[in-house]
Amino acid sequence: MAPRLPVPDLPVANHDDVDSMLSRKFGKEVANYFSGSPLNRVSFLRTDHTFLSAALNHSTTSFLLFNKLNPLTKDPTQLAFATFSDVKPLIGSDPYQQDEKEIVKAYNSSAFTPQLIFLGLDDRNKEGLVYKDAYRGAPFFALDVTPQKHIVAEAEKVIEKVTKDTGFTFAEGRMNLSLHAQEAAIYAEARHMLDWNSRNPFCAQCGQPTLSTNAGWKRSCPPTDSANLPGGATSTTPETPRERASCATRQGISNLSFPRTDPTVIMAVVSADGERILLGRGGKWPKYWYSTLAGFLEPAESVEEAVRREVWEESGIHVGRVVIHSTQPWPYPANLMIGAVGQAIPDGENIHLGNDAELEDAKWFTLEEVREALRVGTSGLGEDAGPGYKEGDLRLPPSTAIAHQLLKGVVHGGFLAGVVDRPSI
Amino acid sequence: MAPRLPVPDLPVANHDDVDSMLSRKFGKEVANYFSGSPLNRVSFLRTDHTFLSAALNHSTTSFLLFNKLNPLTKDPTQLAFATFSDVKPLIGSDPYQQDEKEIVKAYNSSAFTPQLIFLGLDDRNKEGLVYKDAYRGAPFFALDVTPQKHIVAEAEKVIEKVTKDTGFTFAEGRMNLSLHAQEAAIYAEARHMLDWNSRNPFCAQCGQPTLSTNAGWKRSCPPTDSANLPGGATSTTPETPRERASCATRQGISNLSFPRTDPTVIMAVVSADGERILLGRGGKWPKYWYSTLAGFLEPAESVEEAVRREVWEESGIHVGRVVIHSTQPWPYPANLMIGAVGQAIPDGENIHLGNDAELEDAKWFTLEEVREALRVGTSGLGEDAGPGYKEGDLRLPPSTAIAHQLLKGVVHGGFLAGVVDRPSI
Ligand SMILES: [Zn+2]
Ligand SMILES: [Zn+2]
Repeated sequence: MAPRLPVPDLPVANHDDVDSMLSRKFGKEVANYFSGSPLNRVSFLRTDHTFLSAALNHSTTSFLLFNKLNPLTKDPTQLAFATFSDVKPLIGSDPYQQDEKEIVKAYNSSAFTPQLIFLGLDDRNKEGLVYKDAYRGAPFFALDVTPQKHIVAEAEKVIEKVTKDTGFTFAEGRMNLSLHAQEAAIYAEARHMLDWNSRNPFCAQCGQPTLSTNAGWKRSCPPTDSANLPGGATSTTPETPRERASCATRQGISNLSFPRTDPTVIMAVVSADGERILLGRGGKWPKYWYSTLAGFLEPAESVEEAVRREVWEESGIHVGRVVIHSTQPWPYPANLMIGAVGQAIPDGENIHLGNDAELEDAKWFTLEEVREALRVGTSGLGEDAGPGYKEGDLRLPPSTAIAHQLLKGVVHGGFLAGVVDRPSI
Repeated sequence: MAPRLPVPDLPVANHDDVDSMLSRKFGKEVANYFSGSPLNRVSFLRTDHTFLSAALNHSTTSFLLFNKLNPLTKDPTQLAFATFSDVKPLIGSDPYQQDEKEIVKAYNSSAFTPQLIFLGLDDRNKEGLVYKDAYRGAPFFALDVTPQKHIVAEAEKVIEKVTKDTGFTFAEGRMNLSLHAQEAAIYAEARHMLDWNSRNPFCAQCGQPTLSTNAGWKRSCPPTDSANLPGGATSTTPETPRERASCATRQGISNLSFPRTDPTVIMAVVSADGERILLGRGGKWPKYWYSTLAGFLEPAESVEEAVRREVWEESGIHVGRVVIHSTQPWPYPANLMIGAVGQAIPDGENIHLGNDAELEDAKWFTLEEVREALRVGTSGLGEDAGPGYKEGDLRLPPSTAIAHQLLKGVVHGGFLAGVVDRPSI
């Protein structure tokens, strides 16, 4: 008999496949959309060029292609993957042939190579790569095939090859919220990383161009640059690369060199008497559509403090107790959504929108109104509410949003039930 | 009778003053060191130059000065603050005189002004500023007085003034862990923000120099530059500033313009039978000193996934259930520590250090060993263990570390007690 960790009575995952996978493996846990990746990232192998070369050119390797951050898809629920031979004309026969030190040494700021990211190994595939007898699985990479700079012609050829006669398309917008959960998690990792690389072509510390290293997971600020050597690229005379200005990121480890993830708080706030829930709406949202309040966590705040600050700034409500519910990766562009439930203090329930101008409206709804909206009034922002929805009633975000899961946790879960004592406040 | 949100049976805060403040205001909640700030950040007023001017020059205003990221202190437990008249020679009579749009328009990359940050209002001070009849409190700012560029002489004068005959010193290293909790929170906010500004003098998107705006909370990439205008700074002829290269951060909102906070997971891992706790140690730590495992959360991971990945990569252990415990801001340089408790799965308890080379050792300890170490063996990394410690026994981090609070939560809190059922796994 083994004790298990207590877990608040939370709603189970919103997508059947994530849910069943996690509950099979780990027991009940809230797995929000975009989490639940089947890939083992083996992050310590990102600097092992022998591994990367083997992973790139294995019979089970898949490449998720992006054109301007839009992923290649079979249909709205499934990603489409390319093979090594599809992308070889663009990335060459082995971009990982050299050791990383040599790559940094040979840095040439005038060269351009399409961004390639190693995503991880899928160990469910028994035909996958076996490395050092310890790491197994089918390798996954992401590759940016956006036609740009001097790769326009080659990129267009690759795009034509993977889309012609296949019916595959580069899905635009956030249609990706319809992907099956595990593919959504692979997509989220790839999109976040491609976006981060594309936003950081320069070093914020010194202003000089940076180089993608660690299989796409680092941007290095090389000490030298071989661009515009007198002999040119075809010269056989060894030339000394130009020294670049010094940069603090080369001493020790700087967070600037590594991917950025912005922690964000999102919270269902209940009234002091536990009978109502605070929701807000943005000015451009469909009529009657509300959601939970949210905002970026700031430097030197705990999650609980960020929740209280954001709620007060946006709605004037004073929140007391805060409990963390679950978390969700959100790759638009780089968020970690930290979902919480908070409780207003009795004399702090008056709504005041005058602090921050972010919301068009904020309002207290009864538990019953929220329960009914979860039943018949949920949809994506651009979609119609479901059948059964009555015009004028509350509308809410779909189950892929952590806001939906938080509200479910409050109206159906244990957050308000008799789990604890009910002292007068 | 009002229901209250259920909260797991967690240890209370590690510092008496944070604890009593929070429990008085909000009821029981874990408040880790560096959280619990008394300041209202009124973040929406950071663009209001009328407010900022008034806040800068109020009789209750305090400036926390930093020399190379070291704060001015009275003694190891207390910060020292300067007044507006102390810092006026360095920042001028009103750096917020102009509207922010005008400041961006007048941008001159060859000018240098010491970094100034608005931290917030302390509403416990009843003599504080009153703004728009809605926002009250004594204003707090942080100011970087490091002697550099053309402000060397003025900065040295300010430093001399605040340290001579006062006994105040700029505290080096992480001695700041001895500060009273509320001052530690003010220090953490200031240090995180000064560090972020100093790491980002250039735009990672375009490589051009950036300008501090939003009272220190934003780095803008101005569209023009008035440096090296033919007439020079003293010219009365209106000159047209040079246009700078275009930059994507000027369209819409880019996270690059705003402070970065790196979410980090830190976890107490218990064995499947609940009898042991996994701890690890770095190579340079004192003998017998161990702590919980920790690592950066990566793009597109939930907290639970990051915990499982990090534990497996560092120790070879497979973790199942994960529960979030509490969070801690950690300004070295920019972390949000997300503390969790995880439980190993029965056939995944063998320690293997060969994946990632980060730990020198990882080991299972009994609950009793951890309990005893929490009682007599805790200290900072550079300090001796307390009286009662027996050479050779386990040593652990001090109560200011979330690792300590996590372990307390496991051995004294409700995480392993009979709160839930104990099914066989
Ligand atoms: Zn650099
Ligand atoms: Zn820029």
